[in-house]
Amino acid sequence: MKYPKGVKPRQYRNVRQGSGRKVKYGQRGMTLEKDLDITNDHYLKISRAVIHKKPTPVQIVNVDYPSRNRAKIDEAYFKTPSTSDYNGIYKGRYIDFEAKETKNKTRFPLINIHAHQVDHMIQCRAHGGIVFLIIRFSTLDETYLMPIGKFHVHWERFLNDEKMSISIEDVRTDSHLLKEGLNPRIDYLKAVDEIYFRNGEF
Amino acid sequence: MKYPKGVKPRQYRNVRQGSGRKVKYGQRGMTLEKDLDITNDHYLKISRAVIHKKPTPVQIVNVDYPSRNRAKIDEAYFKTPSTSDYNGIYKGRYIDFEAKETKNKTRFPLINIHAHQVDHMIQCRAHGGIVFLIIRFSTLDETYLMPIGKFHVHWERFLNDEKMSISIEDVRTDSHLLKEGLNPRIDYLKAVDEIYFRNGEF
Repeated sequence: MKYPKGVKPRQYRNVRQGSGRKVKYGQRGMTLEKDLDITNDHYLKISRAVIHKKPTPVQIVNVDYPSRNRAKIDEAYFKTPSTSDYNGIYKGRYIDFEAKETKNKTRFPLINIHAHQVDHMIQCRAHGGIVFLIIRFSTLDETYLMPIGKFHVHWERFLNDEKMSISIEDVRTDSHLLKEGLNPRIDYLKAVDEIYFRNGEF
Repeated sequence: MKYPKGVKPRQYRNVRQGSGRKVKYGQRGMTLEKDLDITNDHYLKISRAVIHKKPTPVQIVNVDYPSRNRAKIDEAYFKTPSTSDYNGIYKGRYIDFEAKETKNKTRFPLINIHAHQVDHMIQCRAHGGIVFLIIRFSTLDETYLMPIGKFHVHWERFLNDEKMSISIEDVRTDSHLLKEGLNPRIDYLKAVDEIYFRNGEF
């Protein structure tokens, strides 16, 4: 199965080169995924929430068993994800989100989001979940939380071939800006509190 | 990383042989995983719940790019899962469970469950989730739903080296027997209704 366009495969390219390779200017910042991993670990540690990234879906074709203890997968392919990447529980509620970053400074391209993921998120919302997207403009160092209801409007226009991206102005209007700190790295649950638990209840 | 003892790697062994291979007597029945996939697809289709199996966690070491469109993973290893395999949303509540089957006719061995998975499930329960195990005695064709609270007692004894398994009598006492049907294959949400929503509310 084809792996969709995106940054994912690239992050494995240099695995064998070890950590000695030169770090270019643009690679200094942490990736959004890494920041969210650290944030979720922190939330787990302080018992604030239990939220995990799902493993990357892989179609395993062949497994080699060179020894009893170590099974080596020697042929596998990336699969298109059928759900969003992150989910878990917060204040007793189901929480579900997708996280994407772009180097584009003015627009968030929608081509990186899969229809299956949006369908999944809309279904989760219909069942009463807290559902949103985290969007980072990595060049600008700005990270936003956009509730699925707001995102859905832009997505419909994308499906109707009306637009291929969301302008940064629209992202700013329809989202909460997430402050980045040391710990938690991206306190997105603070924004969740403001949006979904404003009066102390869901 | 070692892959834990279990049935998982074996299911990939025959992938390259195609579907023409002879089916042995013991392979006629569906696996629990397959039954749950079909059940969850059904629940999704009728908008009863949104519950998915998480992808198998894999540590990707090397990816080959023979062409632009198809990235081939040619070195990867199974990782020990840090969460349970299934989660999602039902009636607005977070739901989380692990599913295991054994060919043993009298006992459910606890060695197949990872401590990280149990820790995860206990955390989810503490945050207000609906959490349980689905245990199938495949030789007996009996499938049970055991709430995490009941399981935890047995697990503590396992951690204290008091016992390595749960007897089938204890499983029967502490669980709901799940009837198997055509569609849904295993109506485990019916048991969830009886256990967690008995008075129409959680």
